[in-house]
Amino acid sequence: MNGAQALLRTLIDAGVTTCFTNPGTSEMHFVAALDTAPEMRAVLTLFEGVATGAADGYSRMAGKPAATLLHLGCGLGNGLANLHNARKGRVPVVNIVGDHATTHVGYDAPLQSDIETIARNVSTWVRTSKSAQELSRDAVDAIAAATGPSRGVATLILPADVSWSDGAQPMPLHPFAMPPVATNETIAAIAGALSGGGKTALLLGGRALREPALLAASRIAQATGAALYAEVFPTRLERGAGLPAVERIAYFAEMASVQLAGLDHLILVDAKAPVSFFAYPGKQSYLVPDGCRLHELASFTQDALGSLEALVDRLGAREVKPLLQEPSVLARPSGALTTDKACQAIAAVLPVGAIISDEAQTSGSKLASLTARAPRHDLLTLTGGAIGQGLPVAVGAALACPDRPVFALAGDGSAMYTIQALWTMAREQLNVTTVIFNNRSYAILNIELQRVGAEGAGEAAKSQLDLSTPALDFVAIGHGMGVPSVRVESCEELNAALDRAVTEPGPHLIEAIVPSAFSGWKLKALPHVMNALGKIPQPMAKALKRKIAP
Amino acid sequence: MNGAQALLRTLIDAGVTTCFTNPGTSEMHFVAALDTAPEMRAVLTLFEGVATGAADGYSRMAGKPAATLLHLGCGLGNGLANLHNARKGRVPVVNIVGDHATTHVGYDAPLQSDIETIARNVSTWVRTSKSAQELSRDAVDAIAAATGPSRGVATLILPADVSWSDGAQPMPLHPFAMPPVATNETIAAIAGALSGGGKTALLLGGRALREPALLAASRIAQATGAALYAEVFPTRLERGAGLPAVERIAYFAEMASVQLAGLDHLILVDAKAPVSFFAYPGKQSYLVPDGCRLHELASFTQDALGSLEALVDRLGAREVKPLLQEPSVLARPSGALTTDKACQAIAAVLPVGAIISDEAQTSGSKLASLTARAPRHDLLTLTGGAIGQGLPVAVGAALACPDRPVFALAGDGSAMYTIQALWTMAREQLNVTTVIFNNRSYAILNIELQRVGAEGAGEAAKSQLDLSTPALDFVAIGHGMGVPSVRVESCEELNAALDRAVTEPGPHLIEAIVPSAFSGWKLKALPHVMNALGKIPQPMAKALKRKIAP
Repeated sequence: MNGAQALLRTLIDAGVTTCFTNPGTSEMHFVAALDTAPEMRAVLTLFEGVATGAADGYSRMAGKPAATLLHLGCGLGNGLANLHNARKGRVPVVNIVGDHATTHVGYDAPLQSDIETIARNVSTWVRTSKSAQELSRDAVDAIAAATGPSRGVATLILPADVSWSDGAQPMPLHPFAMPPVATNETIAAIAGALSGGGKTALLLGGRALREPALLAASRIAQATGAALYAEVFPTRLERGAGLPAVERIAYFAEMASVQLAGLDHLILVDAKAPVSFFAYPGKQSYLVPDGCRLHELASFTQDALGSLEALVDRLGAREVKPLLQEPSVLARPSGALTTDKACQAIAAVLPVGAIISDEAQTSGSKLASLTARAPRHDLLTLTGGAIGQGLPVAVGAALACPDRPVFALAGDGSAMYTIQALWTMAREQLNVTTVIFNNRSYAILNIELQRVGAEGAGEAAKSQLDLSTPALDFVAIGHGMGVPSVRVESCEELNAALDRAVTEPGPHLIEAIVPSAFSGWKLKALPHVMNALGKIPQPMAKALKRKIAP
Repeated sequence: MNGAQALLRTLIDAGVTTCFTNPGTSEMHFVAALDTAPEMRAVLTLFEGVATGAADGYSRMAGKPAATLLHLGCGLGNGLANLHNARKGRVPVVNIVGDHATTHVGYDAPLQSDIETIARNVSTWVRTSKSAQELSRDAVDAIAAATGPSRGVATLILPADVSWSDGAQPMPLHPFAMPPVATNETIAAIAGALSGGGKTALLLGGRALREPALLAASRIAQATGAALYAEVFPTRLERGAGLPAVERIAYFAEMASVQLAGLDHLILVDAKAPVSFFAYPGKQSYLVPDGCRLHELASFTQDALGSLEALVDRLGAREVKPLLQEPSVLARPSGALTTDKACQAIAAVLPVGAIISDEAQTSGSKLASLTARAPRHDLLTLTGGAIGQGLPVAVGAALACPDRPVFALAGDGSAMYTIQALWTMAREQLNVTTVIFNNRSYAILNIELQRVGAEGAGEAAKSQLDLSTPALDFVAIGHGMGVPSVRVESCEELNAALDRAVTEPGPHLIEAIVPSAFSGWKLKALPHVMNALGKIPQPMAKALKRKIAP
């Protein structure tokens, strides 16, 4: 068999059975080989950023990686932002990038570029396969790199002649070592810190936000009084009724500082020490308060769950009951639509087992609090901050979990980066309900413009944040890509559209016309905003008010 | 003034007065500074690939560079494919990429990435500005690098604190040397080759495809019998009635080989030796025939026009009349729409001074021959082969030449890569007529699948090239982004839509429903196809037929 046929067989044998594609001429032998490999589901996208984001979303939910098929360095460039997000979320992706034939590279043809260099930015592993005979071994190594301890994006560059040459054979995956549990010394030191009487918190990230780890963390919290925080943008957070609650570190550094104020010990579990998302003049980037001691229970290459369980045992907390969220059904909102009411409508209709891909930015600011006691669901967020992830991740999640309803929440600005995802939702008839909050602006930047203290911003500046001329019509755009779409301007209309979306199979798009969540917002009102976000208890909001508006 | 204000003033003083933007938080001080710099036209895009492609198109037509404003490494990634095209076309672009504040970089915040490494792939010059005091000097160096002899993309990385820090001053552009003319020895050698009696051709590229260079080249051709060829994908080709004709080297290598067959001397003028776009099993990548001697009259860092003029003088051809295309008005087509008739309709309506951004792929294959004697126009093509350039380049060209009508021709597949360009056309009310040839497939790949000899391609493979499920509705998509849009399914409808588009100001979108140009095409029919392209004289097509279908 030729290289492409052996590659596909190797991927399938290793469980990699979904591939998100946007192929070109150099990938035609891979495409032709699909007819020899019916177990591989090749999902065509119209833009590479959809393919890479979908591979990320699939992998987050399936517990095994998806592959991509991209066309040369330019296709990789188009997919780069969502590979960045996958990298930051440490999500396994087998990123296959076609290249010119090895004999062709020297001619500097128009599409020639340095693929390896571009790939290195987002990859834990990069290799250009040298021959059809070596390709299956390369693929096995790529899968091992993607799913192993340093998990992330493994980029396999596939020259056209490596695909088309004969004499290749598939190869089975080799076993690899499980990541280690924290040492006894580390666990003893952390148990001591938690029992020492100071103010303590666990910061959970990565794989420590799945149910078993959350249950262990909650036992620890109940036994020691430690607070539970999650990283700002979780890769996959299991939450809702019946699961332990965990408060996410706020995006706004001013707010995160309040959350972390007064801590004596912060214990990292597959998470990094919190830093500000952006820098602001005169403000600190590092958010761990002075005098707070950092501990690392498990790095991202260690076994977070095993380490938490060992800590539970060390603390004698095995029989402590975790604190689980009680279910609570919210009333359906009525009247004029606001962003908060839109989030309430979604929370009220959320089916058990739903998957939420959240890129709603400011419009979704109340979503976390409103869905905290909703039926159990998974939340997938913008791990690397590169906008344009939400819709593609929903595509991948829906393919990984065909029996679970998926909600993709996007702002009007963010939806436009990878809007081509709608077509793949229609083509594959995915059970995704896309809700686009259309406030006709880059609303977050209206806030950031104030936060960075940019003075003298007048009409020219504000025009750069304004999406009202012309207003985007997402119903038309949705129809244009084959997705049943509806515009809602009241809570009643939204409720009805959501009912229809969760009842009828296949994709739906709901364009919710909303005012900006923080319209007319002033920096001095930050504590109010934070309180509105529902994440900060009132006393903290008051402390914050003293801090930022003295 | 702060860094951002000084940067804007430096750009404006150097004539860089258009900036294509998609800013984020780290660019907010640049955005705020726009109100101090009313001479700078900041053009918002919804996706960075639109911004970079528009900067390319602007620069091709304005004769001076545009700037971009991108958000960090991920924004650069999104813009990378069209920067690749600008690089391959050697188009000056001042590519400004915001970065985290220098104090923030060490914290590995979510959006942290290695911007310089990504930028190097597409840039002739990369620098991260170190301070507000150095920023104007950095900008001057960037403009010099973009427009100097090694012209191309100059990437200036702009940390947020360099923007916001005070104490900066603008700086004037420093003069730089003009590129040199070919040496007397080179000119003498080439004049000898042209006069030696063998079969000769000039291959013109880059800046040698503008009127003055074409006139000189035509004088040389008339005096010596040399053929005139243009590179496959010209950056900017001036053509039509009243200008010399120049035949483009064909995209299909099989066809290019026929064009070049039997040549004794090939003279490169700001062009590279022709190579196949992709590699194919068992076929050569290098297309210069055995025994043909290559000469370089002017490399891309030399003065192509001056070198051609010197060659004219050396050949004593100053008084030779260039061979100019006679004008010819085509009849407007009627009846059922085909791709050829659609091209004829465009040729028949083309106003004098039009600009065509051509990314119509297979559907536009007859465009070149049908517009050869149309009113004088500029043709901008896909210089680097990275699809998604056509609509953005049209945006930039329309801003550079507000008094000239712009036509953006795209396939359905190619249009979807940077479809967000439509919104900027509407927002800026650009005089762009976008014609999307919707054949509901990646038609070129149906041909490539055969050309690469991929065997066993069945339904799974063909499904990867099929865009019919669901069919994209570009009228809906156009309306969704604020562009008046119409679908045409007959020649009469297309003629009427074109009349309206050239009469009414502002953007228009015409979705032409067409059959695939090479529907049911078989490899054996290649000579027929090539003949249909109208670029190959009948005898050559016959020779080709002998060659590929023995």
